[in-house]
Amino acid sequence: MGKTVLGIDIGGTNTVWGLVASGGQILRRGQISTRGYDDVASYIHQLYTSIHQALGPDEFNRVEAIGVGAPNGNFFTGQIEFAPNLEWKGIIPLQALLVEQFQKQVRLTNDANAAALGEMQFGAAIGMRDFILVTLGTGVGSGFVANGQLVYGHDGFAGELGHVIAIRNGRACGCGRNGCLEAYTSATGVVRTALELINELPHSTTLKKEGLSAKKIAQAAQHGDAVAKRVFEITGEILGQSLADAVAITSPEAIILFGGLVQAGDLIMQPLREAFEANLLSIYKHKVRILLSALPESDAAILGAAGLAAS
Amino acid sequence: MGKTVLGIDIGGTNTVWGLVASGGQILRRGQISTRGYDDVASYIHQLYTSIHQALGPDEFNRVEAIGVGAPNGNFFTGQIEFAPNLEWKGIIPLQALLVEQFQKQVRLTNDANAAALGEMQFGAAIGMRDFILVTLGTGVGSGFVANGQLVYGHDGFAGELGHVIAIRNGRACGCGRNGCLEAYTSATGVVRTALELINELPHSTTLKKEGLSAKKIAQAAQHGDAVAKRVFEITGEILGQSLADAVAITSPEAIILFGGLVQAGDLIMQPLREAFEANLLSIYKHKVRILLSALPESDAAILGAAGLAAS
Repeated sequence: MGKTVLGIDIGGTNTVWGLVASGGQILRRGQISTRGYDDVASYIHQLYTSIHQALGPDEFNRVEAIGVGAPNGNFFTGQIEFAPNLEWKGIIPLQALLVEQFQKQVRLTNDANAAALGEMQFGAAIGMRDFILVTLGTGVGSGFVANGQLVYGHDGFAGELGHVIAIRNGRACGCGRNGCLEAYTSATGVVRTALELINELPHSTTLKKEGLSAKKIAQAAQHGDAVAKRVFEITGEILGQSLADAVAITSPEAIILFGGLVQAGDLIMQPLREAFEANLLSIYKHKVRILLSALPESDAAILGAAGLAAS
Repeated sequence: MGKTVLGIDIGGTNTVWGLVASGGQILRRGQISTRGYDDVASYIHQLYTSIHQALGPDEFNRVEAIGVGAPNGNFFTGQIEFAPNLEWKGIIPLQALLVEQFQKQVRLTNDANAAALGEMQFGAAIGMRDFILVTLGTGVGSGFVANGQLVYGHDGFAGELGHVIAIRNGRACGCGRNGCLEAYTSATGVVRTALELINELPHSTTLKKEGLSAKKIAQAAQHGDAVAKRVFEITGEILGQSLADAVAITSPEAIILFGGLVQAGDLIMQPLREAFEANLLSIYKHKVRILLSALPESDAAILGAAGLAAS
């Protein structure tokens, strides 16, 4: 029997965990709230108690390692560092706290890096040594794998593809700069593009500014709304351009896309693929596959964290 | 005694070689023309003959490995693939030809990757596990080192930083696309920027359009020519912006610059450093050093190729 590991994904609202077999089967799973504790120690204690109860002592003892994906999680320091969406502020020594509580080997990284390891161990990147994983959610994250290893960078913060400049002097980004890829190709970026187009062409669309979401824009596009379709064309084009630039740096075999936005299907994938190929340096043309994540959305975060533990 | 290796750098005009000790001392060196042979086999034979004669049989036998830097050299295939500046067209199986002739282990990569390995073994990157080497010459090349390893990419063609898009829909580049970094921050890019400024401000400069070179522009700038100074400001700014984006991907400890352009010193380095810091995502600010190559220009190509052999 292979290695059995625990994958824990810490989100802003909930923490989900799973006991994962070496083949990627989730044998058992559970979740607790990430919010509402007096301090981190109380949260860690609650996490331990609920996992220990769910597994029972025998199964708990079989856990060989724990992988944790968390916003701003740093592989080298084992700390969560200044995560804007968590209640705990500043620097949290999460790895040390978990080791102390669980008495197991613990590895920590950020969500996108964990997702890349999940795809490599269990998903669309099995057998690949050079690929890029891009998460298109509320923000845009990425994990770069080169020579079969995750690129952590000198400080553990490599892979911030969401913050390369897609459009010089472009839109304000939450990071304080302008024109970041995340400001255009995240779920919120898509809404901003739609709001701009609605302002320009208020009578050409069924979209309403109030309560707009990426999902509503995708639905309108699927029903033929020209403005909504244009939103995804613009988004795909900008993403394709930036991905072509990333290829010139690490020359991957594939780019794997993950997250809510890719559910828009061909609406985004077709302009993305076109812009990507059109912008590639000739030596890379027709060599780099753009794939969708092969992990079920509900399991991906757990499998990503488990991939880190098993790597 | 450490490993003694042969470093061979194949340039468009000349091929230079050196016998290199493990500490990076060049024990013996020589050169032959790269041009004027009937075919590649004749060139390889001439290279072998001249090296064998210069070293003598005892020293030749002590050579444990051969590293070769060549334009469009591919580490994985051992081939030179469609190098525009060499007389041999198409695909040249250089590694196989050299192994057959020299009866030694041979490794091949492109010039910029070799330069990165040279800096790591003998130069400014000793002890570094994550850095970027950027060559600013006739073109712009780069080698990315992550986790202590050169990033070759899936096909051996990683590290084409010269062909990320610095300015969308910008200048035509030799690669057939528009706006590449190389079109702005190579020696030829600098001349193009100067020609544009001379056309705009013909009476504000001592620069002449005829016979213009990066060196002449640097000299004029050092004598206070405002247009020439502005050329380096623009160049440094564009390079700083693109390097800041590259940091967001591999998060290096340092970026090492190599090549003729950096001899312009503060003229280019000051605007470069300013634009670089101003454009970095906050988590990277004041963490990434921009260094100059620590290899003497005359030896760098040999030491780079030797670094590949010794790695």
